[in-house]
Amino acid sequence: MRIRFSAFLFASCLPLAAILSSTNLASAQTITDKQRADAKRLIDAALADSSAWGRLADLTDTFGSRLSGSKALEDAIDWILAQMKKDGLANVRGEPVMVPHWVRGTESATLVTPRSTPLHMIGLGMSVGTPANGITAPVLVVDSFDDLQKHAAEAKGKIVLFDHPFPLDVAPMEGYSQAVAYRGGAPAAAAKVGAVAALIRSVSSFSIQNPHTGSTRYDSTGTKLPVAALSVEDAEMLHRMQRRGQKITVNLKMSAQTLPDAPSRNVVAEVRGSEKPDEVVVLGGHIDSWDIGQGAMDDGGCSVAAWEAVRLMSKLGLTPKRTVRVVLWTNEENGGRGGRGYRDAHMAELPKHSVAMECDNGVFKPLGFRFQGSAAGLEFAKAVGAIAGASHIVSGEGEADVGPILQRGVPGLALDVDDTKYFWYHHSSGDMMYVIDRHELAQCIAMMAAMAYIIADLDQPVPR
Amino acid sequence: MRIRFSAFLFASCLPLAAILSSTNLASAQTITDKQRADAKRLIDAALADSSAWGRLADLTDTFGSRLSGSKALEDAIDWILAQMKKDGLANVRGEPVMVPHWVRGTESATLVTPRSTPLHMIGLGMSVGTPANGITAPVLVVDSFDDLQKHAAEAKGKIVLFDHPFPLDVAPMEGYSQAVAYRGGAPAAAAKVGAVAALIRSVSSFSIQNPHTGSTRYDSTGTKLPVAALSVEDAEMLHRMQRRGQKITVNLKMSAQTLPDAPSRNVVAEVRGSEKPDEVVVLGGHIDSWDIGQGAMDDGGCSVAAWEAVRLMSKLGLTPKRTVRVVLWTNEENGGRGGRGYRDAHMAELPKHSVAMECDNGVFKPLGFRFQGSAAGLEFAKAVGAIAGASHIVSGEGEADVGPILQRGVPGLALDVDDTKYFWYHHSSGDMMYVIDRHELAQCIAMMAAMAYIIADLDQPVPR
Repeated sequence: MRIRFSAFLFASCLPLAAILSSTNLASAQTITDKQRADAKRLIDAALADSSAWGRLADLTDTFGSRLSGSKALEDAIDWILAQMKKDGLANVRGEPVMVPHWVRGTESATLVTPRSTPLHMIGLGMSVGTPANGITAPVLVVDSFDDLQKHAAEAKGKIVLFDHPFPLDVAPMEGYSQAVAYRGGAPAAAAKVGAVAALIRSVSSFSIQNPHTGSTRYDSTGTKLPVAALSVEDAEMLHRMQRRGQKITVNLKMSAQTLPDAPSRNVVAEVRGSEKPDEVVVLGGHIDSWDIGQGAMDDGGCSVAAWEAVRLMSKLGLTPKRTVRVVLWTNEENGGRGGRGYRDAHMAELPKHSVAMECDNGVFKPLGFRFQGSAAGLEFAKAVGAIAGASHIVSGEGEADVGPILQRGVPGLALDVDDTKYFWYHHSSGDMMYVIDRHELAQCIAMMAAMAYIIADLDQPVPR
Repeated sequence: MRIRFSAFLFASCLPLAAILSSTNLASAQTITDKQRADAKRLIDAALADSSAWGRLADLTDTFGSRLSGSKALEDAIDWILAQMKKDGLANVRGEPVMVPHWVRGTESATLVTPRSTPLHMIGLGMSVGTPANGITAPVLVVDSFDDLQKHAAEAKGKIVLFDHPFPLDVAPMEGYSQAVAYRGGAPAAAAKVGAVAALIRSVSSFSIQNPHTGSTRYDSTGTKLPVAALSVEDAEMLHRMQRRGQKITVNLKMSAQTLPDAPSRNVVAEVRGSEKPDEVVVLGGHIDSWDIGQGAMDDGGCSVAAWEAVRLMSKLGLTPKRTVRVVLWTNEENGGRGGRGYRDAHMAELPKHSVAMECDNGVFKPLGFRFQGSAAGLEFAKAVGAIAGASHIVSGEGEADVGPILQRGVPGLALDVDDTKYFWYHHSSGDMMYVIDRHELAQCIAMMAAMAYIIADLDQPVPR
């Protein structure tokens, strides 16, 4: 999932009437009755067929979480490739990509003073570890980077805890974009003031003691400090203790390490186009996940939804003019190597990519799509969306895995869903099948399938 | 908290008009202007004073969870007694009670086949432990006691998992009363069919991987099997695995044990009555909690609310005719010894208890009270409630700690709150200050204080 706060703001500020009046709506007329009927068949089939939920459960129950470098990820990929062949999809293959191989190991955070109690923590992805006995140090709680600067003189030798709340008075994605700056920036900021480790308040909009992980990052020059998230509840408790003037001491133990890069694969399969097979509509999600929970929401659900959309086209014998290609990218979470790998492997055919659609906000009730591209492309997408059941089509950034090819000019679509609860579960042990609603998953499949099919079957590609 | 499904149903089925027309409303006229004004002063003070939230945070941050038999519980009681004396309350004392002393120790549940992964579990209170290496056995998943009977022949030597959902189509308390039967009854039912351990689906109406504990029980004659709750998510996963025909094996390790009974105390403090000091209005909550989370919601919030109600009377110099006594019972969670101990210690004065009010559903937005007693008492409570801001007064069972004295004829009041989310956190690590809303806590204090004050100051006691 890509942060796209500014894009969202931009989209919401554009005068819609201005767009509508200034662009060419002719493309709407090119959608034939047969295309409308085919789209309806796909939508009806998706809504009637409940096998996707079962397939997602099979995937996530059998292989569990799927972190880059893990055997579980590669086993899951092998299983998907075999299933896709059984589904009768064309050109089923794993396209090799080398990925980072970070392993969490064992970890804990323990409050030592003012009273001894285990804290609810999770190490951030790509963090370095601590010495075997951990780091025991006083804690300085700050609520922001600015607050740390004000207390910089007190930070030396301490564990800095950034208790920065996830804003709840804005849209979830906007709140995330503000709060996640601490997940990325905490260790470097803490290192600069002489701290020995960093903690953050879990980046989540609601919590029942489920700390959320996610990638952190380091300055190339600074000391690499170990960094973990505390649950919202525990971060707040430590902050209250500091306000009372209590001396807070924490022992942080993490055996995390980064091993040499490991081989992985992007999963690719197709329904070959009937008239223009070298032109491509891509749709997909990412098959890797964090190493806790099942990765059912992030991003197993979208991966299965994209796969199911293509399977339904194949099953119904709907062969559009262009090739429809499902891509399940690897390593979205901690590297983005899958997205860049796809770009590099398909550089020559990018000019013939009509659109690249990604789903990475969970398979909650779908609203429509964000479109990244030209004004003409946006109007084109709106015209198709009206037929595909996606009346909400707004200008906005595409998701992370398609980013590298969108930068090369490929128009992008990102499935927009009701993300009210997305950051309740995101990157936490709560990302389980329990989150996935059968009907909402089916609705996502219907919308993605219809949108991809019509775009693949239209005479013109999406205007760039 | 007492299960009171049948009482609730009863209350909701009573024709309200019939009650209103059949009973004596004269008591409403006995409430004087001064009493109304005093009640308003209490309500205004409670809503203006935010110190209760801070006091609850001080209590729960400083001592954490407070299981019967723990040092944390007794330290918390010592602190409360000292604070109550500083508050200027009268007759501040700890009344001795011996309580069960169950200790959790270390515990884990690990899925061994079809794949190896730790499960999210919590041992049930009062469970016996396992051998040191745990119990490794195949799992039989059933969805009910009846389902277990159907599969009784397959249960021998297995770990039985009861995956019985918390009903979501009924009121939370009714759903709880149905689901919690498995928390109590699982080990005895599993023992009868030759199982070696029992697991239950966590008794919770919503889950983010937070398993809920709570007391289990054993038949006096049967084998005592170790029993734990799995998170809703993990219980569902194991059930899906069984439906797929996969062989499920789990290793369950628990070092839980029950030590000899330990000394504890009911916390008691008073505002002495000005005219009838030997007549008593009791209000309170329970000060013990389960051993995870902070016990902020269950039942620290109510304990502090009752305490604060009495502190505000004292602070405002409001001395009713009768004595108002705050009681923070010990050992509600796994024994009920505090409630029985209070009854036994105060047996002689029970005829002069005008009412016993308890709060044990969390300090969410208060709705009013359930009343346990005579029809005349209910009308009396309604008349007072109308002045105290509690328009919702219904017939229903009192809470657990006052149960023993209500059985002896003392009329009971139980604070009814919006319990929509109560079973999201109940008995789980999510029971933290994060759950407690400052304003809702203040509203609970206001309602309890006004209700208790007027009842204590009226000429007549609550009719029996």
